[in-house]
Amino acid sequence: MKYLFGVDIGGTTVKMGLLSEVGECLEKWEIPTDKTNNGANILSDVAASIVSKLSEKKIDKSDVIGVGAGVPGPVDSKGIVHNAVNLGWGTFNAAEELSSLTGLNAMVGNDANVAALGEMWKGGAKGYSDVVMVTLGTGVGGGIIIDGKIVNGSVGAGGEIGHIHMNDNEEKACGCGGHGCLEQYASATGIARTAGEMFEEYKGNTVLTKDDLSAKAVFDGVKAGDELCISIAKRFGDMLGKGLAVIAAVVNPEVFVLGGGVSKAGEVLIGYVEPSFKKYAFPGTKNVKIVLATLGNDAGMYGAAKLV
Amino acid sequence: MKYLFGVDIGGTTVKMGLLSEVGECLEKWEIPTDKTNNGANILSDVAASIVSKLSEKKIDKSDVIGVGAGVPGPVDSKGIVHNAVNLGWGTFNAAEELSSLTGLNAMVGNDANVAALGEMWKGGAKGYSDVVMVTLGTGVGGGIIIDGKIVNGSVGAGGEIGHIHMNDNEEKACGCGGHGCLEQYASATGIARTAGEMFEEYKGNTVLTKDDLSAKAVFDGVKAGDELCISIAKRFGDMLGKGLAVIAAVVNPEVFVLGGGVSKAGEVLIGYVEPSFKKYAFPGTKNVKIVLATLGNDAGMYGAAKLV
Repeated sequence: MKYLFGVDIGGTTVKMGLLSEVGECLEKWEIPTDKTNNGANILSDVAASIVSKLSEKKIDKSDVIGVGAGVPGPVDSKGIVHNAVNLGWGTFNAAEELSSLTGLNAMVGNDANVAALGEMWKGGAKGYSDVVMVTLGTGVGGGIIIDGKIVNGSVGAGGEIGHIHMNDNEEKACGCGGHGCLEQYASATGIARTAGEMFEEYKGNTVLTKDDLSAKAVFDGVKAGDELCISIAKRFGDMLGKGLAVIAAVVNPEVFVLGGGVSKAGEVLIGYVEPSFKKYAFPGTKNVKIVLATLGNDAGMYGAAKLV
Repeated sequence: MKYLFGVDIGGTTVKMGLLSEVGECLEKWEIPTDKTNNGANILSDVAASIVSKLSEKKIDKSDVIGVGAGVPGPVDSKGIVHNAVNLGWGTFNAAEELSSLTGLNAMVGNDANVAALGEMWKGGAKGYSDVVMVTLGTGVGGGIIIDGKIVNGSVGAGGEIGHIHMNDNEEKACGCGGHGCLEQYASATGIARTAGEMFEEYKGNTVLTKDDLSAKAVFDGVKAGDELCISIAKRFGDMLGKGLAVIAAVVNPEVFVLGGGVSKAGEVLIGYVEPSFKKYAFPGTKNVKIVLATLGNDAGMYGAAKLV
């Protein structure tokens, strides 16, 4: 039997998995992300954990196909990370370093791209090869896969779909410095902002309270039939559907996979996104499917393993 | 010496080329496109012309690497054409048919994608492997190349960037049935429409006349320092730059290549597109280059040959 390691490096913890070559997860565990000293210890901690797992399981290095890792920042197709600010990392070849630290074949990719690969291999996009994953969390991330391969982009900024420009009239700045990015409307943060603005103006009764205007509260309200929540969800769906229509005109995938915290709202989400997508999409792309991610936090670990 | 045939099938003529395997054009010629009987004779006319050229040049079929053809319509990665309405074609495997008619290896692609491949091989994007070509003609077409390979999309609608939704307030319909597509502002037709609207409202002196509000007249006026023309060019540049920014956030290419009739205006065009691109682009993608196509009408012929 041959083995794979999948490593998902986050800002707080590193999720690790030992998998069989066909992608069965044999064991998963976590180690803390050590961000001291500009994250200089992160890869050696990962390597030490892998070496210790090999020894514990009495697995020979020659039976390991390799280690794949997802990193929160731009990574190009050579495994070079370009400033992963959340880890304190500058620009260096993380794949080479991980390989030299472990003595194993290693590949590194952007975390959102790697999660898309995971959903294609074992999750909501299983069986497809042209996939766009949209991660709706604090921000909006994206991972694009064409013919089964990640589109990294020339400087690792492929799939930065949270920063598609959507609105010329936006006065507030996005985290990227732009104004009117998709992320400002379709992330959990963006939904909460819309909820705040609409709550202020709303005169009727609502289940929402000033203390909790979160995306979760909004979609709980939608499920309870709350009118204000439904209006907020419509505004979110209009923006995200329009963004997906733009993406479809560029790469025409087979399927969009919606993941991240916001997607925990479930199928109800798709009911708000799909009508807007069909309204704005180029006719040839209207049949692109929109599905939910199914792997949750494990998508990165699976996708990282699939990298190698 | 090994040979390639490049075939660019247009609505009026078929441009054909005999090339060496390194892409040197040895001879080029044209035949008319026979659109009678739903275009049923087009591929057999192409095949007859190839066979006759082989006989004229005394080239043995075993010395021909293959025939590539570009088609004005959606084509998937298997060479299946999905309704090329300009030729009268429905859905069928044009690559297989061209191969059986010629007895040669054959590949077929969408004309805009194939032109992008040509510009990457021999034109403005030479030396790059992540390229987006934007064809500014009667409409706006696009060809996307990632890692040296065309992004066809799941139903051949990859690179349909003319139909990126740009404007919620557009009242006129695009040819695709949508409202507010990039093509409505950035094509030659779109520029002429903007020119018409702004000409009506303009009170000052201008070199433009009601009889000629074409894209060419506008850019000739720009070069002469005409204020109205400069305003029209700014509106065009704002829309196209914003569209390119969106594309860059999705696939993060190394270079945009501007081709088609509008691009004959020359370098002056880039001066109107680039500031808007930089204004709306995600920071990580601001350094993407914008260049002019250099192969003109031969891009499709070169790119088609490169397919095989």
